[in-house]
Amino acid sequence: MGRWEPGARERLVVAAVDLFTEQGYDATTVAEIAERAGLTRSTFFRHFSDKRELLVAGQETLSRLLADGIAEAPADASPLAAVAEGLAHASSAMGPQNRELGPRIRAAVAASAELQERDALKSVGMAAAMTEALVARGVPDPVAHLAAELGVLAFKRGYAEWSEGDRAPEDDFAGYLRKALDELRAASASLH
Amino acid sequence: MGRWEPGARERLVVAAVDLFTEQGYDATTVAEIAERAGLTRSTFFRHFSDKRELLVAGQETLSRLLADGIAEAPADASPLAAVAEGLAHASSAMGPQNRELGPRIRAAVAASAELQERDALKSVGMAAAMTEALVARGVPDPVAHLAAELGVLAFKRGYAEWSEGDRAPEDDFAGYLRKALDELRAASASLH
Repeated sequence: MGRWEPGARERLVVAAVDLFTEQGYDATTVAEIAERAGLTRSTFFRHFSDKRELLVAGQETLSRLLADGIAEAPADASPLAAVAEGLAHASSAMGPQNRELGPRIRAAVAASAELQERDALKSVGMAAAMTEALVARGVPDPVAHLAAELGVLAFKRGYAEWSEGDRAPEDDFAGYLRKALDELRAASASLH
Repeated sequence: MGRWEPGARERLVVAAVDLFTEQGYDATTVAEIAERAGLTRSTFFRHFSDKRELLVAGQETLSRLLADGIAEAPADASPLAAVAEGLAHASSAMGPQNRELGPRIRAAVAASAELQERDALKSVGMAAAMTEALVARGVPDPVAHLAAELGVLAFKRGYAEWSEGDRAPEDDFAGYLRKALDELRAASASLH
């Protein structure tokens, strides 16, 4: 994983998200996405099997990164500390282009019922991946579920903060995720 | 709201869920749903504007019930106590037919990527309705979000338990929801 390399794949994602915003997900064709990205249809198909896969690919990578980070946390880490490791691991793979995509993705999702459903499924997928990774560490089921939901909330809140407005380029995503998880941890003390 | 009255609307929902399981959501037509329910297409359209609305209608009712219960909780109730009131209020509108639908809906969702997306969106809608109702009570944002997510988890776990296997008919849904929320409350103490 490591650094984000600008390239065909990323250009296709940016072009697709912009077209989804402008004209909707359903109305956008693979040919249009390739054209907007200045690439050919065959280049599109070297990276993605179809328009839907373009959205799902990022989500699967993210879920895998979160689960790997949780699996690699120290054996004595608490469930929430393991989730923090998952978030840190995922953030290490996200760079400036992911940050720029944030407002574009939000605009596209706001404009499309179909993308809202895919976005909701993405959250469920992230929660399931983290729950499974926690259960594999021996965390009992309801605790694992709850810690995973906190992780999803922290990811969403941290990503929104990180990608909104004008931020200094040296601001790293990991810091936003830590802050969001700390806020949720503090919030969990005020539930009762 | 109150008691569940068997009738055309419920027969249409049961017929639709069964057909979605057997042949998929996309492949099922309004005419087939009406026929399976022993009703006419025009009766279908007196209850639902289309196939999609049939799924969404229940979700909107549920979200409203959860929000109403939270709004009516005593002023000094903690965020989680208010969520418990929301769950109790929603459960009062769910009877034996909702219980029977549980395994059918799970089978239909397991068989269809499209229904998985709608199911995920339903969870997001429930969480949003509860968050909004909590914020209206003056609960600060991250606490409201977290309490709402606990409510969604409790609803899902309680509903799965209630509608699985052979249960005595006098088992009420409210008890399952209370137990699920209590388990999650206990789990939240083991996160750190």
